[in-house]
Amino acid sequence: MPPSVNGAHTLLQALLDSGVDVCFTNPGTSEMHTVAALDRVPGMRPVLCLFEGVATGAADGYARMAGRPACTLLHLGPGLANGLANLHNARRARTPVVNVVGDHALLHKPYDSPLESDIDALAGSVSGWVRRTRDVAALGADVAEAVARAEEGQVATLIVPADVTWEHTPPQEAAVAGLGTFPDPGEDRIAAVLATGEPAAILLGGDATRARGLLAASRIAAATGARLLCETFPARLERGGGLPEIERLGYLPETADAQLAGIRHLVLAGASSPVTFFAYPGRASDLVPDGCDVHPLLGKGVGSAADALEWLAGQLDADGTAAAGAPRPERPGRPTGALTAESAAQAVGALLPEGAIVVDEANTSGLWLPAATAGAPRHDWLALTGGAIGQGLPVATGAALACPDRPVVCLESDGSAMYTLQALWTQAREGLNVTTVVFDNRAYAVLGMELRQAGGGERGGALFDLSRPPLDFAALAEGMGVPAARAATADEFAALLERGLAEPGPFLVDCVVPRVV
Amino acid sequence: MPPSVNGAHTLLQALLDSGVDVCFTNPGTSEMHTVAALDRVPGMRPVLCLFEGVATGAADGYARMAGRPACTLLHLGPGLANGLANLHNARRARTPVVNVVGDHALLHKPYDSPLESDIDALAGSVSGWVRRTRDVAALGADVAEAVARAEEGQVATLIVPADVTWEHTPPQEAAVAGLGTFPDPGEDRIAAVLATGEPAAILLGGDATRARGLLAASRIAAATGARLLCETFPARLERGGGLPEIERLGYLPETADAQLAGIRHLVLAGASSPVTFFAYPGRASDLVPDGCDVHPLLGKGVGSAADALEWLAGQLDADGTAAAGAPRPERPGRPTGALTAESAAQAVGALLPEGAIVVDEANTSGLWLPAATAGAPRHDWLALTGGAIGQGLPVATGAALACPDRPVVCLESDGSAMYTLQALWTQAREGLNVTTVVFDNRAYAVLGMELRQAGGGERGGALFDLSRPPLDFAALAEGMGVPAARAATADEFAALLERGLAEPGPFLVDCVVPRVV
Repeated sequence: MPPSVNGAHTLLQALLDSGVDVCFTNPGTSEMHTVAALDRVPGMRPVLCLFEGVATGAADGYARMAGRPACTLLHLGPGLANGLANLHNARRARTPVVNVVGDHALLHKPYDSPLESDIDALAGSVSGWVRRTRDVAALGADVAEAVARAEEGQVATLIVPADVTWEHTPPQEAAVAGLGTFPDPGEDRIAAVLATGEPAAILLGGDATRARGLLAASRIAAATGARLLCETFPARLERGGGLPEIERLGYLPETADAQLAGIRHLVLAGASSPVTFFAYPGRASDLVPDGCDVHPLLGKGVGSAADALEWLAGQLDADGTAAAGAPRPERPGRPTGALTAESAAQAVGALLPEGAIVVDEANTSGLWLPAATAGAPRHDWLALTGGAIGQGLPVATGAALACPDRPVVCLESDGSAMYTLQALWTQAREGLNVTTVVFDNRAYAVLGMELRQAGGGERGGALFDLSRPPLDFAALAEGMGVPAARAATADEFAALLERGLAEPGPFLVDCVVPRVV
Repeated sequence: MPPSVNGAHTLLQALLDSGVDVCFTNPGTSEMHTVAALDRVPGMRPVLCLFEGVATGAADGYARMAGRPACTLLHLGPGLANGLANLHNARRARTPVVNVVGDHALLHKPYDSPLESDIDALAGSVSGWVRRTRDVAALGADVAEAVARAEEGQVATLIVPADVTWEHTPPQEAAVAGLGTFPDPGEDRIAAVLATGEPAAILLGGDATRARGLLAASRIAAATGARLLCETFPARLERGGGLPEIERLGYLPETADAQLAGIRHLVLAGASSPVTFFAYPGRASDLVPDGCDVHPLLGKGVGSAADALEWLAGQLDADGTAAAGAPRPERPGRPTGALTAESAAQAVGALLPEGAIVVDEANTSGLWLPAATAGAPRHDWLALTGGAIGQGLPVATGAALACPDRPVVCLESDGSAMYTLQALWTQAREGLNVTTVVFDNRAYAVLGMELRQAGGGERGGALFDLSRPPLDFAALAEGMGVPAARAATADEFAALLERGLAEPGPFLVDCVVPRVV
């Protein structure tokens, strides 16, 4: 078998052999090898949809008219979930539809990484037939059966773990390697461990990322030399105005590896033990370095991590210790010249008002945002916790309702914005003070990065391209009653951001930037 | 207890008593009594969202900032499904969210009506706590527990059947009344039954709604006097060009009752035994009249109903019988004057081209479409089979890909269009020949009708209103690369429809019409 015939190749060829040659898709990282194979296996027509509900409804319409199934290619449980309502309609229409749902690599599933969910339960709710392929050798037959079962007049769903698509031989299911080494939770013992002065880090999550937790953690760090990190995507991180600036654990595994290198003790304060978002061929899912003990301050997700950190600070006689750390970061100046993700971040840093609530779904365009805003006045930072895109605009809507006296700044990416753009209408209807910035790089740029990360090369570009046709976010916003404008230079962007912050009610800035990755 | 204190009142009061006073919602018929109660129970702020993914994400953002949960009010399984991705993010953020998911009345659930689905499985995939309330007496305590469990830092989902909200006492669970009387399937006996000349109807579904099935059914009707009906929402109905025009079973129970009154035998040809979409206080879910025997031609959903009808026609010596029926309907003239749902339907009837594929999600605005298009050239009619809105634009996209040489006409309603509007971008990207008409009545008009049908009175109007702000569908379409225009008169509408049909690629007409109901 030539080296290019991996599971993804087998998958597509088996679909074609069964007469399925149209694929409606909005893929994600776990489907990257299949996306790469779409370029290599002639005959399959991929049709990119901006939301999975479009992909599944299109597959229904296709089969009603063509008399034979199309397939969908969907990303994990959240991608399938977004497509369920139209699969429900297809089920009632007795339409043949073949769903191919990517899942995490079998080796990665035990780690309960952020996008892990019960795909089988979701699939079962609409499908007459569901199977999970665990062995690349079975993939061809599984695909053939999926098509045959769909052709009986039902939805058939095949769940394909990422490693089944990238392997040439059966992947191994994980004997769970163990998430680091977990001693029993217990603050007492942790104080003793930290007091040893061995290289240690404290990973902050839950309410440890709010002011009280950050200050307690900072006192502990000053007293013990422990390094402070916070979850990659905190639910609510308080920042600015002189609060200790906490480094976030990197999204890219290599970044996280570097941050955790040499750590002998990792204390979990409201956070889970760190794992990679996705599996990648040839690397471990567990981010805890070899020889590092993991010390949960609390049972998982139970109790207040801030309370526990204050108690721990007391145990370490760190109550009065001055907070460790660098001098308070300066705010960047107002940018001028070319509009890029970097200059836009400078403008946000320069203009972010006191008490702002920042909702961050800027994805790859957000690279410079943490540093640029570290010197801003006190604000809250709300991140994409579960990795299911389409969260930013709705979360901003809810935050503005919760805190009507605070400005909300929603930092969005184009692809994610198009998932739940309807939130703008509710913002207009309710007169919510949300300033939305769409970092409009005309691509699912993160997927290009993930494709390279997954060893898929530079292919698949057409499926990540949002430029044909370009989206006009100002027109879209105004169509829902939200005033909006497009910025083409850093000066224009700063002026529009200022205007959005100054005016009551919602405002949207279409911030046209080049891709970062 | 005063008569107004039904389950819906109890539900809202219990939420308020637990400190939940914001409700993000996109409700449907099974939530109508709760919507009515929102007008009567002071203190709860309802926030209308155009898509459930907005409602759930907003609830996440609200709680991250307010530190206490909001609730969502979602419509059955498909409504929950549309909100799942952002509930996944909320679960990973450990955000407290209380979902109230309406379900069919307990009496209605056994009938597998179009919107029936496995809500519990969907809810379980994101919720730390799920309960189904079966007794209005337990509702207050169930709500209190849902809020308490959510406040532990998780999603809590309470499933509330419609009759629990409208009753003052525990509803009865159905001892299944039986869907009519079902003899065993069998074509032989059915021929004998139809030959008796007793009042009979044949309900067509599956491939019986395509030309071959329709012609066979028509011969049988001519030979036996049986009445022909087709499913309320057929997956694909062939029409026009001299094909027998088949009456569709009415959506409103009273309409269906009138159509089936006096029928002694109901033959199911590819259709399920007819039931109401929803339960309504005091009326049966089963639409089969008392004393009517139900005769399935086929096992449910298995085999070709067209084949079975042809065989049956042979048994009845009806092979050569001229098709029964009225003279071929005339096409309406091109309308002029005011633009209404009726005059717009006339324009569609006047202009529908040969070979068109009509995708129909016009909902209440579609009242005049079947009659207006019965005299049109041969076309296919694709309906909303499962009742989960947001299907029209995607199905049109898929149909256009399946049949690139046929014009696609997508008849949409404003509320449904906003569910999956992103489909327009794929239509532009792929250059698909789809002409979309948005019947823009600035309301979820069907819900006003359903509220009255459910005995909820005239309340709830604010939650069905899409006029604040008005949606500019032309701007929205152009924002996704689809040329578009707004029609304000019948003449303008006809001209724009003609233009859309004449031009290659997608086009959208914003058809501003008054509400029908």
